[in-house]
Amino acid sequence: MEQKSFKIGSATVDYYFDGSLSQLRELAEKKTTVLLTDEHVFEAHGKKLKGWNTIVLKPGEAYKVQATVDSVIGQLIELGADRGWTLVGMGGGVITDLAGYIASVFLRGIRFGFVPTTLLALVDASIGGKNGIDVGVYKNMIGTIRQPAFILQDTSLLRSLPDAEWRSGFAEVIKHAAIKDAQLFRELESGSAAFYKRNKTALSELVQRNTLLKTRIVLSDETEQGERRLLNFGHTLGHALENQYELTHGEAISIGMAFAAKLSQERLRFKEAERLTALLEKYGLPTEAVYKKEKVIPVLARDKKKAGASVNFILLQRIGKAVIEPISLRELNELI
Amino acid sequence: MEQKSFKIGSATVDYYFDGSLSQLRELAEKKTTVLLTDEHVFEAHGKKLKGWNTIVLKPGEAYKVQATVDSVIGQLIELGADRGWTLVGMGGGVITDLAGYIASVFLRGIRFGFVPTTLLALVDASIGGKNGIDVGVYKNMIGTIRQPAFILQDTSLLRSLPDAEWRSGFAEVIKHAAIKDAQLFRELESGSAAFYKRNKTALSELVQRNTLLKTRIVLSDETEQGERRLLNFGHTLGHALENQYELTHGEAISIGMAFAAKLSQERLRFKEAERLTALLEKYGLPTEAVYKKEKVIPVLARDKKKAGASVNFILLQRIGKAVIEPISLRELNELI
Repeated sequence: MEQKSFKIGSATVDYYFDGSLSQLRELAEKKTTVLLTDEHVFEAHGKKLKGWNTIVLKPGEAYKVQATVDSVIGQLIELGADRGWTLVGMGGGVITDLAGYIASVFLRGIRFGFVPTTLLALVDASIGGKNGIDVGVYKNMIGTIRQPAFILQDTSLLRSLPDAEWRSGFAEVIKHAAIKDAQLFRELESGSAAFYKRNKTALSELVQRNTLLKTRIVLSDETEQGERRLLNFGHTLGHALENQYELTHGEAISIGMAFAAKLSQERLRFKEAERLTALLEKYGLPTEAVYKKEKVIPVLARDKKKAGASVNFILLQRIGKAVIEPISLRELNELI
Repeated sequence: MEQKSFKIGSATVDYYFDGSLSQLRELAEKKTTVLLTDEHVFEAHGKKLKGWNTIVLKPGEAYKVQATVDSVIGQLIELGADRGWTLVGMGGGVITDLAGYIASVFLRGIRFGFVPTTLLALVDASIGGKNGIDVGVYKNMIGTIRQPAFILQDTSLLRSLPDAEWRSGFAEVIKHAAIKDAQLFRELESGSAAFYKRNKTALSELVQRNTLLKTRIVLSDETEQGERRLLNFGHTLGHALENQYELTHGEAISIGMAFAAKLSQERLRFKEAERLTALLEKYGLPTEAVYKKEKVIPVLARDKKKAGASVNFILLQRIGKAVIEPISLRELNELI
């Protein structure tokens, strides 16, 4: 296990790379800790959680809502949790988002940490302190930015991961490469999902590289005034599609990235749109979808990234170099 | 109007002393601002709010709950509010607590400010960035600490205030004097509620003195690790009584302060318990109550200020000098 600490804003976050779930007891006291997880994770790894207080949620984005928050807070009160307790989110992005949010508002904020169990949560959702819940079709409309005390990475937990979850994780890995890391992009082109799944060292290195890439962006801009916005590449259209069309997060943002690549071609003479769609497809991700403009535009118009009558889109100048471009709702209406 | 700015944590808070509601348009754009208020305030001052987007809530602590938050967020989405908008809480402590909390979590945080309309909100609730909502009988179980961008003080808004609200305000003023300011305590002893109500200059000075007293405490300890805890004087028992016995906040903490004074007498040989109860009574506040131990102890045991099997009580060494004392639940059980 390798440990690195980063000071993000006024918080210190301890990252444990290449760790093991069994080390959790070094990071949190069993008696004053609650593990928040879901049925899938509990089924796969529940045996390793003996003796921990656990709250097990139904799995899926549909439960990333206020009713779940209310229920968990009721259970924390029942357990007698006070300001000295720790909440640990063990699961994918839905669980880390919920755990981070609940710990940020319960008793005006208690300590929390993450044990990510999906590739997406490892390389993306667990990092950077953004948390939140959805309101109807609007994703992450409610939330805070607050950093976890620790992130314990154990890639052996990925063994039970379904293929769709691997694809969602690779979508974020490809996003990182597209906006910031041309060398990683080439590495992904020569590798494959199957290669990373069977090669533990390559997978660990991939996770660590992506963790650090995202962490560096967050360090330079925790509250998303500039640089951090680049991480929204593919997410503007992606979020508008995700909750309306029963797509996974990875599928939705893959379609969003392919759309943004075409937009980049038209507006910035980006020449590698096909290279990006080819890589997305290599990792089993869709790059086109049939959707109704009338359903998507109103959601885009209420996007958190909206600024007046424009939506801030992230576009590519080249692989590894992204920029922020405001695009008017009128123009979007024509392009979509 | 006199303006002072304070840097609290990473935020800058602009205080406008002796201001006027009409100056609100200098602090927030009508088109991109929502005023959150309640029916009492709207009835008394609604005419001055023409042209502002307003959300008018039912008045009272019973509405300081998640259902209200859900409803307001739904309305903000309907109004098309984005990250560039401002939420202004205009009202008493319930409204400032709700507005601060909603603005802290909507879109992961938007700008907000306060126009306090009660003495309690002016000298206490609007200051220091603590916000929150209740869960059942547990007060402020959910919330954040986040500073407003501005506080616009207009004491002329107090003219419509019912007597019970004045008493609640004076309870916090007496608290400030008891824990930190012996000179203010003597001033209150020689004055009276009637005096401050009819003397605008004396009232403005009282508000400003209390505002600055609380602000200095918050500046030294925003996240309540030490000094700020002193502000909980009277609040531990007070909160346990408030939601169970239909007491106003002022009545509840007045009873709490009288209890803490007696505890101070026993534990710290505090000699001025009677002087404190006399002052509370002079300002129309109760200092005794009949309550059931069985109803109060379980709530104390879940207090946010709980640390393991003890509750941190704020006690007085003398008027103007408070200290933190952990008292075990067992001992409390005997004393109450």
